[in-house]
Amino acid sequence: MNEYLEQTGREAKEAEVTVRNLSTEKKNEVLCAVADKLLQRREEILKANEEDVKNGRENHMPESLVDRLLLTEDRILGMADGLRQIAKLDDPVGEVIGMKKRPNGLMIGQKRVPLGVIGIIYEARPNVTSDAFGLCFKTGNVVILKGGSDAIHSNTAIVSCIREALKECGVTEQAISLITDTSRETAAQFMKLNQYVDVLIPRGGKGLIQTVVNTSTIPVIETGTGNCHIYVDETADLKMAADIVMNAKTQRVGVCNACESLLVHKNVKEEFLPVLGKRLLEKKVEIRGDEETEKLIPEAKKATEEDWGTEYLDYILSVKIVDSVEEAISHINHYNTGHSESIITNDYSHAQKFLDEVDAAAVYVNASTRFTDGNEFGFGAEIGISTQKLHARGPMGLPALTTTKYIIYGNGQIRP
Amino acid sequence: MNEYLEQTGREAKEAEVTVRNLSTEKKNEVLCAVADKLLQRREEILKANEEDVKNGRENHMPESLVDRLLLTEDRILGMADGLRQIAKLDDPVGEVIGMKKRPNGLMIGQKRVPLGVIGIIYEARPNVTSDAFGLCFKTGNVVILKGGSDAIHSNTAIVSCIREALKECGVTEQAISLITDTSRETAAQFMKLNQYVDVLIPRGGKGLIQTVVNTSTIPVIETGTGNCHIYVDETADLKMAADIVMNAKTQRVGVCNACESLLVHKNVKEEFLPVLGKRLLEKKVEIRGDEETEKLIPEAKKATEEDWGTEYLDYILSVKIVDSVEEAISHINHYNTGHSESIITNDYSHAQKFLDEVDAAAVYVNASTRFTDGNEFGFGAEIGISTQKLHARGPMGLPALTTTKYIIYGNGQIRP
Repeated sequence: MNEYLEQTGREAKEAEVTVRNLSTEKKNEVLCAVADKLLQRREEILKANEEDVKNGRENHMPESLVDRLLLTEDRILGMADGLRQIAKLDDPVGEVIGMKKRPNGLMIGQKRVPLGVIGIIYEARPNVTSDAFGLCFKTGNVVILKGGSDAIHSNTAIVSCIREALKECGVTEQAISLITDTSRETAAQFMKLNQYVDVLIPRGGKGLIQTVVNTSTIPVIETGTGNCHIYVDETADLKMAADIVMNAKTQRVGVCNACESLLVHKNVKEEFLPVLGKRLLEKKVEIRGDEETEKLIPEAKKATEEDWGTEYLDYILSVKIVDSVEEAISHINHYNTGHSESIITNDYSHAQKFLDEVDAAAVYVNASTRFTDGNEFGFGAEIGISTQKLHARGPMGLPALTTTKYIIYGNGQIRP
Repeated sequence: MNEYLEQTGREAKEAEVTVRNLSTEKKNEVLCAVADKLLQRREEILKANEEDVKNGRENHMPESLVDRLLLTEDRILGMADGLRQIAKLDDPVGEVIGMKKRPNGLMIGQKRVPLGVIGIIYEARPNVTSDAFGLCFKTGNVVILKGGSDAIHSNTAIVSCIREALKECGVTEQAISLITDTSRETAAQFMKLNQYVDVLIPRGGKGLIQTVVNTSTIPVIETGTGNCHIYVDETADLKMAADIVMNAKTQRVGVCNACESLLVHKNVKEEFLPVLGKRLLEKKVEIRGDEETEKLIPEAKKATEEDWGTEYLDYILSVKIVDSVEEAISHINHYNTGHSESIITNDYSHAQKFLDEVDAAAVYVNASTRFTDGNEFGFGAEIGISTQKLHARGPMGLPALTTTKYIIYGNGQIRP
């Protein structure tokens, strides 16, 4: 094992006890101090970011990525505001759940506690640096960040601000570490640091997430891709259905909770598809449909098998006609990525069946898939949207960054 | 990927929808039918087991392992009773948690649902076969079992009974599969089957668990080893303390919640240790102590650094004198395996400090560590005791074999 990583891990583990036991007040004080520090040292952050952007452009980074990398005064203000928002949220740590008395007099309950050391692997978005720190620190966790090499100067400057604020508040700077060696080899070794790191959260594209899942010996929380479907049932209010499809497809296309695939019951295809098709085409959405869709929307292209499994993140929608709610559910369970799925219907039993049988993190009746989001669900903040089944599923608020331990009050009980 | 494993995984995944949607009534009917079938075909199971035991003895298997492998009429009766007990437990699937109305009218709640396909890797205990099936099936999961090669004939016979009962109840036999190729290579490949298997639970010794953690690309629930401590504080009721230590050390030594290490406050060492030492020696417990312990219990051997980190699972106890509750907590957090830890004290703030700061699945005041157990906690059944922090921590009852999904009732909401 790389000595530098070993040391980073050991120092993080050592800081764990201190950070775990900080009062909510102290944690909030630090979060606000970091916000102040980011604003105070914004010139320095912007300068570091300029260097990253310059390098990115020299290495022919696509403009969409440059835009994610770029920091401005406004974006730094946004980072600082984000930290102040996190300071305002309830601290989930310390809550005791379901304390019960056993027949032998033992009082047994579950206390919510920090996870310990959280590793975050992400790509070229420097705002994730302060955001991830804020969420992990608020929940009493130590965080080790491994950002992309493209953002190394920006991340170093941001982490330097965070550490200075920690120090000024009298809290160990080891509460956050940044792995500055951005080689792939170091990244791979980082994912094996299960002796020191309790959980690893990848934030980024499909490739990054797959690499982490296949390499890590640390437990991983997968935040994922969304091949989200809307199924328009035969009893749907077709005006509502069209409004929801338009919202879920076009309100913002590059996000994981956008709709990528539409299923329409055969009995409403003639009435629904030409009208919807017109609205989609007005918004420059490319339609890729099965044979029957092509007949009803002449502008539609032919969908291939690959289309049914694709998360476009673009102005493209695949469309398929189905014979029944059962066929819709079975298609969705086959092709979806376990993110968000919606049925538009006025049939009670179809609604319940869809909610019961569709296997996804969020299943909707008569609403847009775009609501799968920590803020929309009322969590106030979000570390990502889990598309896996262990520990957390769906939008992850602060409690997803905690675990529980059993606490037991006795008065001399021994086991017979 | 091994074609046989690929097929096993695919078939399990295909069975998932059927098993997930079985009614509680149907699941209970199957569990009782399997219990009947095990009794009905017990001669055949005993004969298969005889062969395993004969092979084990020929391969010089230690008698303690032979005892774990051995089935008798009584043990088969126990397996059948276990399944009937599971049938009597509440089904956690379907419960909806915390449904709330958002300002926009969306009703959002979390519904408890099966995990999907659960893989269990275990060693030479054939009773795990029916037990694991019972717990997984009751929670609507499909299970793939990979037992040890030593028990292959017994496991094959038991799984054949389970499948026959499933078939007679009209439920897909794919609800359970047994991987009969017991090579190490196949085991390693099984741990990479993350396309089909949602979670992998190893049940067995430290070596098995480490291999699974380091090899698996499937999310793992670690069930673990227990280097459990009892700390006797200066204000402890010393009679209570001695009773608890005796119970936690000697009531059953080969279990993960047995006490392996004792910490004693320096102010009570003279009064406590000679008395306790006598009781331990009467029970033939070997004492390995630090220098001060050796002075107070002449029969004690010298503890090495290795002793502090060892789970003996035997009539051995390590003993150390500490200066304060802080030193005790810091020693425990350094050497423990995150299982069960207990403080014996009458000091309010020390009790709260210990509960707050000790990092383990179960932290006790004034009680034996032996209570860390699904039945003792009132869960009715247990799939294992998790010593990791993600998803489940401590004794895992039926809910640990489930996940949740968000269900959302709308009436046309779109995201502004």
